[in-house]
Amino acid sequence: MPETGKTAFLGPPGTWAEEALLANTVLDEDAAVSYPSVTDVVEAVSRGEVDSGIVPIENSLEGSVSLTLDMLAFEVDNVFIVREIVHPVRHCLIARRRLPLDQVEAVISHPHAHAQCRKFIRAHLSGAELMAANSTAEAVRMVSESKKDWAAIGSPLAAEKYGCTVLEDEIEDYADNQTRFVVLAREEAPQDLDAPYKTSIVCAIAHDQPGSLLQILQEFAHRYINLTKLESRPSKKGLGDYIFFVDMEGRHGDPQVRAALECLQCKLASVKLLGSYPVG
Amino acid sequence: MPETGKTAFLGPPGTWAEEALLANTVLDEDAAVSYPSVTDVVEAVSRGEVDSGIVPIENSLEGSVSLTLDMLAFEVDNVFIVREIVHPVRHCLIARRRLPLDQVEAVISHPHAHAQCRKFIRAHLSGAELMAANSTAEAVRMVSESKKDWAAIGSPLAAEKYGCTVLEDEIEDYADNQTRFVVLAREEAPQDLDAPYKTSIVCAIAHDQPGSLLQILQEFAHRYINLTKLESRPSKKGLGDYIFFVDMEGRHGDPQVRAALECLQCKLASVKLLGSYPVG
Repeated sequence: MPETGKTAFLGPPGTWAEEALLANTVLDEDAAVSYPSVTDVVEAVSRGEVDSGIVPIENSLEGSVSLTLDMLAFEVDNVFIVREIVHPVRHCLIARRRLPLDQVEAVISHPHAHAQCRKFIRAHLSGAELMAANSTAEAVRMVSESKKDWAAIGSPLAAEKYGCTVLEDEIEDYADNQTRFVVLAREEAPQDLDAPYKTSIVCAIAHDQPGSLLQILQEFAHRYINLTKLESRPSKKGLGDYIFFVDMEGRHGDPQVRAALECLQCKLASVKLLGSYPVG
Repeated sequence: MPETGKTAFLGPPGTWAEEALLANTVLDEDAAVSYPSVTDVVEAVSRGEVDSGIVPIENSLEGSVSLTLDMLAFEVDNVFIVREIVHPVRHCLIARRRLPLDQVEAVISHPHAHAQCRKFIRAHLSGAELMAANSTAEAVRMVSESKKDWAAIGSPLAAEKYGCTVLEDEIEDYADNQTRFVVLAREEAPQDLDAPYKTSIVCAIAHDQPGSLLQILQEFAHRYINLTKLESRPSKKGLGDYIFFVDMEGRHGDPQVRAALECLQCKLASVKLLGSYPVG
């Protein structure tokens, strides 16, 4: 497929995904293209509409982004993780103009952002209604278009894009709020960069194999392969049936990693490589 | 504390939590009390405003409900899981009146419900705007109060409560969509019912102990204790630091289970009992 020179990000403009992309890459201004959902970003990469795409995969407070994991596990077979970007999330309270907090009538954001800031909301905005939006950026846009005394929880980039004012910054309950984004492409990352690598896989375990997780971990432990993440997710075949996402140190071509993956392939119902890429 | 005769549920009226509660318990009409968030339900139980509360903890498509796990792990020490209820989720498309799908201007729901129905939306409602709400029940209320050709994704109970019509039922992408709810109380469940039990714990592993998960699993495996769930969650101390939620078969007073928990308590930074309760 011909190169398009374009990178898709989870939009609308002003999301944390766009902010992470712009802060970590050198791009022409019109090379970053907004897509409305994680599904759309992944499918745009898969179909070749764009060369690459960036989506959130894990947040230090909220945990994994289910939709991203599910798209990579179940919905596409020609998309790889080629890079990870870990970006700090510093939620801001944003309004059209300066106003005292006790005058704020509604706080708009994605329900996850509300959840990340619930102590601040309880302490300073207890009289305000909580209104939901599909993203933090959409919340800021809604505030910018309303005449009411609404505030949004979102990024400084969104405040700037929609001509709004930051009333308070760093309003999240826990410091060290970070999101891990992954960059996706149709070809694997170059495997010869001079950097530490990580490899991500997803494996399925049959329901009636209760000891299998132990077996998986032993394959890595006795080869001294360090796991950086292990996460169970429903297999979508009913409660109690799981798939496991595993991130490990190393490239899939490294002899020890390759041996571990080959053993897992023999033992398990399925093992899918999501990519080997430089550590972020 | 005196008994109140009340049970809190995650509201507003018409949520799947209320539907699961009413379908599985015998309650006086005014004994079920709506609270606006998972946090509020758990705190109402903790403070003794209600005898018990019901919140979702896991969905077969979306995975765990982060907020519920975090409240139980970090925020309260006097609340136990005393029962689990597994309830089917059959999302309905709901409107004020019968109308053809291609006339629907907006589809309102919690972003998770949108995610669970994305194939149906793409096939039949591709021209409609997706609007976010804080819950499926709030979405149905918004539709009931608007004059526009909006539709909501929600429960049959919500359609009934807000005087609306079900346009389509079972619109979720995958069959077997179930949610597991837990009933919380300030005292442990009776341990002597004639039923199979489950025990839930949460344990923390220090960042620099990469082999610890293997150790945890071995404590259970060599005592033939079957695990029904294992889930890692961020510890909120930065990416890469995890806590583990483990559900196992048996009561915490059973000799094998007690021995395993005692060994874990010696080895790990923390082990917290969330409850032993009859299997749902």
